[in-house]
Amino acid sequence: MKSGRAASALAGLTTCLLLASCEPPRLEEPEPAFDPQTVAKAVLEVLDAQVEAWNEGDLEGFMAGYLRSEDLRFTSGSEVRRGWSQTLQRYRETYPDRASMGTLAFEELDVRVLSEHAAMVFGRFRLKRESDEPTGLFTLLVELHGERWLIVADHTSS
Amino acid sequence: MKSGRAASALAGLTTCLLLASCEPPRLEEPEPAFDPQTVAKAVLEVLDAQVEAWNEGDLEGFMAGYLRSEDLRFTSGSEVRRGWSQTLQRYRETYPDRASMGTLAFEELDVRVLSEHAAMVFGRFRLKRESDEPTGLFTLLVELHGERWLIVADHTSS
Repeated sequence: MKSGRAASALAGLTTCLLLASCEPPRLEEPEPAFDPQTVAKAVLEVLDAQVEAWNEGDLEGFMAGYLRSEDLRFTSGSEVRRGWSQTLQRYRETYPDRASMGTLAFEELDVRVLSEHAAMVFGRFRLKRESDEPTGLFTLLVELHGERWLIVADHTSS
Repeated sequence: MKSGRAASALAGLTTCLLLASCEPPRLEEPEPAFDPQTVAKAVLEVLDAQVEAWNEGDLEGFMAGYLRSEDLRFTSGSEVRRGWSQTLQRYRETYPDRASMGTLAFEELDVRVLSEHAAMVFGRFRLKRESDEPTGLFTLLVELHGERWLIVADHTSS
């Protein structure tokens, strides 16, 4: 019995050591808390900054809301432009001076958060100018690049 | 020593039982493998089915590619419609007969997969009709609803 107990004790100890060495599998770090409202707020801040820049006559500041890349996609009516520089060029042609830029407002904004790094924004732009008030609708894809939310695709029509 | 060994054996056994009852935490089922190409393929199949239905003069079949909900958003030029029925109604008004529907083709398709349940599609539609060939650009948000990929937002302009 003595040796039986000793063997049992040894077996028990071995089992314990085996079990102890079988650590529970490490759980992956949980995804960082993903709050759609935080995303929506960050996305709307991009648009607010665009309106502010526009209304200071600062087209480059306005363009800071767009991804500075050849991948940027800008659809207007029946035309597609690709790339940040080409899009800026289009804005410069369409709005050659401060008067043509008027005062910009975004209305009817609807943010649809798709993930922690992608959202869409639907809305209407309105330009108040001396002699007219052009308006139109837009659909934006906004993505998180590094720490910045940036428009990567814009479809505008009026 | 005898009782010492027995106590040790008992302690060992107790530890083993404790350890054994501490099962490793159950890992969540792994997310199903997410293959952007599979998503892109599924999304393009929705558009293929739409083209097929359209070219059979089947507007309701074409509309089967859209989310059947009041949440559907359909932007065309300067107008937004909400809801599946309102969108069908618009198609019925714009394309009152087979001749006006012509032959539809989608071109320049570019699918951007955003997650395992959301993708965007950029593209051009072209209608070949007896007397003209209208064309325009679209931006679609397509989402997985249940097991079906469905268009939930459509911005079209020409």
